[in-house]
This record gives sequence, C-alpha cells and structure tokens, in this order.
Amino acid sequence: MPPQKLSGKPEELAAFIDKFDIFLFDCDGVLWQGASLLPRTAETIAHLRSLGKQLLFVTNNSTKSRTTYQAKLQGLGIPCGINEIFCSAYSSAIYISRVLRLQRDKRVYVIGESGIKEELATEGVAYISDDGGDITPEDYDSFGPDEDVGVVLCGLDHAISYRKLARAYQYLRNPGTVFLATNIDSTFPTHGKLFPGAGAMSAPLTYMTGRTPVSLGKPSQAMMDAIEGVLEFDRKRACMVGDRLDTDIRFGIEGGLGGTLAVLTGVSTEEEILEEGATVVPDAYLDRLCDILG
Amino acid sequence: MPPQKLSGKPEELAAFIDKFDIFLFDCDGVLWQGASLLPRTAETIAHLRSLGKQLLFVTNNSTKSRTTYQAKLQGLGIPCGINEIFCSAYSSAIYISRVLRLQRDKRVYVIGESGIKEELATEGVAYISDDGGDITPEDYDSFGPDEDVGVVLCGLDHAISYRKLARAYQYLRNPGTVFLATNIDSTFPTHGKLFPGAGAMSAPLTYMTGRTPVSLGKPSQAMMDAIEGVLEFDRKRACMVGDRLDTDIRFGIEGGLGGTLAVLTGVSTEEEILEEGATVVPDAYLDRLCDILG
Repeated sequence: MPPQKLSGKPEELAAFIDKFDIFLFDCDGVLWQGASLLPRTAETIAHLRSLGKQLLFVTNNSTKSRTTYQAKLQGLGIPCGINEIFCSAYSSAIYISRVLRLQRDKRVYVIGESGIKEELATEGVAYISDDGGDITPEDYDSFGPDEDVGVVLCGLDHAISYRKLARAYQYLRNPGTVFLATNIDSTFPTHGKLFPGAGAMSAPLTYMTGRTPVSLGKPSQAMMDAIEGVLEFDRKRACMVGDRLDTDIRFGIEGGLGGTLAVLTGVSTEEEILEEGATVVPDAYLDRLCDILG
Repeated sequence: MPPQKLSGKPEELAAFIDKFDIFLFDCDGVLWQGASLLPRTAETIAHLRSLGKQLLFVTNNSTKSRTTYQAKLQGLGIPCGINEIFCSAYSSAIYISRVLRLQRDKRVYVIGESGIKEELATEGVAYISDDGGDITPEDYDSFGPDEDVGVVLCGLDHAISYRKLARAYQYLRNPGTVFLATNIDSTFPTHGKLFPGAGAMSAPLTYMTGRTPVSLGKPSQAMMDAIEGVLEFDRKRACMVGDRLDTDIRFGIEGGLGGTLAVLTGVSTEEEILEEGATVVPDAYLDRLCDILG
C-alpha cells in the first residue's frame, strides 16, 4: 500500500495522532535544518504535548551529550526534559552498562568526541581515549593488546588520527573485545553538503580486522533495545517521525512500532517515498512537520 | 603440485637460477626484517649480479621514494641503481603519467607521505595535498568538487585526518575523478606487530563513496603494467621472490612470470605454503634467501 499523504483535514489529522501515545522524533531534517529551526516546530511540539503525548528526540549524532542537546532544543524554543533526549552517545552508554553489563574493572576505549565521554561518565562506565598526537617510535613498542579494554566504541571524531586507529586495532585483535559504533552513517550532512560520518571512522577498523561493529544508532535495533532499557512504552502505540527512509523509517518499521511518519524537509524525497517496489515505506508523510497542526 | 623446497645441492640451485634472467625481490621479510638485514643478503645479491642477472626491488611501501630506498639499500651494503627500485609511490606516478596519461592541466590530490610526492614531482605530475590541520567552519563552506582534480591517490599516511578525508570525498563525488591507491594492504608490519596499512586510509573513502580504488601495489597487475611501462623484460624469464603468498607470490603468478620463490623469513609460514588446497602456491621455497648460495 502506498503511503498516505496526510491531508490538512482536522478529523484525519486527529485520527492519525490519536493512534499514538508516544512520538519518536529524529531532529536534523525534521525539527531543524542545520542551525535553522523549521517553521512552527515549537508550536507543533507544544500542540502534541497539550494532547498528552509522550515525546522522545532520537538522533544518531554522537558528538553531543543529552545535556548539550537539551540546551540546543531549549535555545530553539523547544522546552524538553533530559529524559526526552536519546542520542547515540547515550544509547551506547546505556547499551554498555545495561545490556552488555560490562564488568566494573573493564574499560571502554573511545574514538569520538565529548558527547560520548560525557554519557559514559554519567552512566558510570570507565573509559580511556587517545590524546590524538602523532604516533611515536615508543608507541610502536608499547602499543598492544590490553585485557582491561573490554569494548572499543567508535563515533564521529573530527580529530581522528593514525594513532587512535592503531590503538583501537591492537585492542580489537583480542576477539573478546566488543566492537561497537555509535552509528555507522557513512556521511554526515552539514552546510548543505556531505562530510565523513561515524561509519567512516570505524571503516578502517572493519577493513583491518574483518569485524563489523554493533551499531547503537538508527536503524539498528540495538538502539531500540537501549531505549527500552530506560523507558517503558507500548511499541504499538508509538510513531517514529523522520526524514530518512533508510535510517528513521526503517528503524520504526523494524522495531515494530505502530506507525511511521516521514517529512520532506530533509534527505528523502517524495519520489523516493512513492517509488514503486520500495522496501522501506512509511505509513504516512507530510511536506513539513508543522502540517500536522492542520 | 606442491612447491619444491630447493635443496642445497649446487646443481639443483644452478638449474633453478638458470631459468631466469631477472629476479623481482620484495624487500621487507626477504632482504631485511625491520631495520636488520637478514644473513648474507648482500652476498646473495652480489652472487646473482655476478651471474649476470637483472634485479628489481619491488615494494608496496609508499612512504619512501626510490631515492630514499636506494640510500637504505646502500646503507645496508647492497649497492643498487635507482632504476632497480620499484616502490608503489613510483608505480603510482608511472601509472598516472604513462598509463592514465593524466592531462597536463589536471592535478592529483594526494593522501600520503613524502615518497609519493617526490615520485609525482620526478614524473612531472602536478599534485595538491592537505596540510592536515583541523577542519574549520570555513572549510565546510569552501570544500567542494574541483574539476582540476583528476585523480585522488591514497597511500599510507601517518598524519591521516578528518580534513584530508573530507576533501578527498568531495573530489571523489565527481565520477570522472579517478580513485587510486598506492596499495590496499590492510596492515603494515613493523616492530613485530601490525599497524594500519595504506588500505586502511582508503577504506573510509570506499565506505563513503562505494568506489574501490585501483591499487598500484602487489598483487595488483596495475603495478606489473607500471613496471612494464618503464622496463622491457620477458615475463617467462622472470622470477618473483617474496615472503607473502597473498601479495608477492600471487603477484608473480597472476603476472604470468616464469617462476615464484617464497622465503620463510617474513609473513607466510611453511605450513601455509604446503597447505593442501591452497590457491596461491609458489614454484619453490627456501628457509632464507641466502640458502640460494648453497
């Protein structure tokens, strides 16, 4: 069945909204584009809140912690609680502490930025990382396996370096070391272009070891597991709202959510949504999120 | 037929040597291990020269130019001419100028070290590279496709960075830009361990673009083509000598050389060489290169 473009009729919109108790929102391309809030976003969010809906902001971006995201949302006029934010740095920390149940005496080796480190610290997970300097002759001698490192976690890192990769590789040669990625997006959209994404940070390690990381970002269901690790909700009464078919909408469908809603303010186009033979099809779509206001 | 371990009998050794006019040598693991020359290597090389054999030193290491390699060989007591050295930095330069015949007004974007840049300059190929600093807000705006960049060439780079990869990605989005790698070795053996190899530098770009680079290192036959671009020889009268089945010996077999000789002073073991059902099998092998002296 082709996805339904929701009309502006109040009764149709109300019927769609009434099917759900919780809405999971992707952020970039749904609420904002880069630094600019999309029209009437704050009003839309406030409207859903006034109807008693639970909200969750779910993003693959691992460079920011929930605290930083909360400040960003509030700065854009969207008040929200920290428990309403689910970024891949947080899902990684939750997964390590509550799903993997990493032993207290083991550490996580992090390739990534402050968002990951903050969330690991908040969750009480010990971690180490590399200062990112050049590899030295001493490093060649001293680098090696480390039984204390139980997990290598790889996220977007604008200071990725040879030394960081060389250390990760030594740890991953131990088959007992778990290989995780905050997400495996190949690219990261910003400034209207594409730049290397978190998946480009783990790609060299996959090439060297033949190992594929478990991803804690959409569409991986490990992220859904992490969400359920901290929040009880009825999947059949949940709707995933996103701009990307291959991550957001797929995440909702494979997670068995009650519904998926696509918006056309980001990556995926109306042609892609309506394409015959498409494997990932949302239940409904809108030009812009605020069209849900009627 | 299982490979023959050459006995020390003078007539058998002479019969093997007599089949060839030219010997192609891998270097690391054959002539030396790290910084240490293997026993009687200089004597062995001198012996083959005294028999009138042509010699070629063929290495995937792209960080050094032929001039630097020549100095290394001479420093280890192996006199050699610059034309006897074929490193992947040189094969890349030759391939670009003589096989691709890159237009004079086009440039090569290099991820790699001084060896590549020196060889491109010697071959008269214009190139640009990145200074490797952090990516800046201005970069996000200014980075983009560049019609002047005809080739992206990727080799081992101990100063690999996000900015270098981000620029390469923008160039490679143009399907007309040729994607080359000096070699695609996943790891680089040094200090008795494995560290990220040149293939780990191009892996993020492959992951982002879905494009696989043409490799100019063993076992790629593009390297054999590059050798033939500067040196005429009868492949049937040539023998490849190496320590790795998957690169050196495969390179010789797929290149249709008259013979291949493995040595056990490097990566591949006698068990691997004699393994039943192995797909890459040398014609003969020796414990050490100097055993060819008898």
